[in-house]
Amino acid sequence: MKIHHIGIAVESLRAAAPAFERLLGRPPDSEEVVENQKVRVAVFRLGESRIELLEATSPESPVARFLSQRGQGVHHVALEVENLPGVLAQLERAGVRLIDRAPRAGAGKERIAFLHPASTAGVLIELVEEK
Amino acid sequence: MKIHHIGIAVESLRAAAPAFERLLGRPPDSEEVVENQKVRVAVFRLGESRIELLEATSPESPVARFLSQRGQGVHHVALEVENLPGVLAQLERAGVRLIDRAPRAGAGKERIAFLHPASTAGVLIELVEEK
Repeated sequence: MKIHHIGIAVESLRAAAPAFERLLGRPPDSEEVVENQKVRVAVFRLGESRIELLEATSPESPVARFLSQRGQGVHHVALEVENLPGVLAQLERAGVRLIDRAPRAGAGKERIAFLHPASTAGVLIELVEEK
Repeated sequence: MKIHHIGIAVESLRAAAPAFERLLGRPPDSEEVVENQKVRVAVFRLGESRIELLEATSPESPVARFLSQRGQGVHHVALEVENLPGVLAQLERAGVRLIDRAPRAGAGKERIAFLHPASTAGVLIELVEEK
């Protein structure tokens, strides 16, 4: 298991990206729109992980709701796992609250599921299985 | 550069650790008190990074202030760099707001410095140089 990425909610990619470019020493490695999450994402690869800046593309985006409630900051932490359905079943048996009881489609060919932050010290955790 | 650790502010290590133990499949790899940050830390190694659960050991701890203002959640993201003084000088020249203009002692032999979250989309970023 490893940290797949840290997702950071930002008001504007254009405003937020330059500071991360200065910090990480280069522009984002990619930028994409993830339609089902209603976000535009700037991806900075960093060792075996990534930092992802997330800008809402709609007021109904989960990121827009987060920004209005909490402001900019870390929105979620994603961990890469193998056998995502098995991990979810195991966590559910152990009493961990799940947002997604079954994997759903993520960006590209990934399958993802979110755990409820009430079970993990207020941190929204995404599990990612790369195909 | 890589993600050194994600620091998560928790009300109680005893209450918060079990969910992370279930998620990560094992107990913390270590537990230590960092006196100058006034925190007790449970460390879970995860690939090239770590997840660190942070419990305040004093009401004056930065983590205690964070908990009273924001509740549990991600407190900071730490990136490992080489030549921390050089990185700080470069960021300052680029207009990034720093909390620490010079490295200070971290846990063990590490040298650390914090950037101001106003420059990095609300995320408190710690830079770490391992000796």
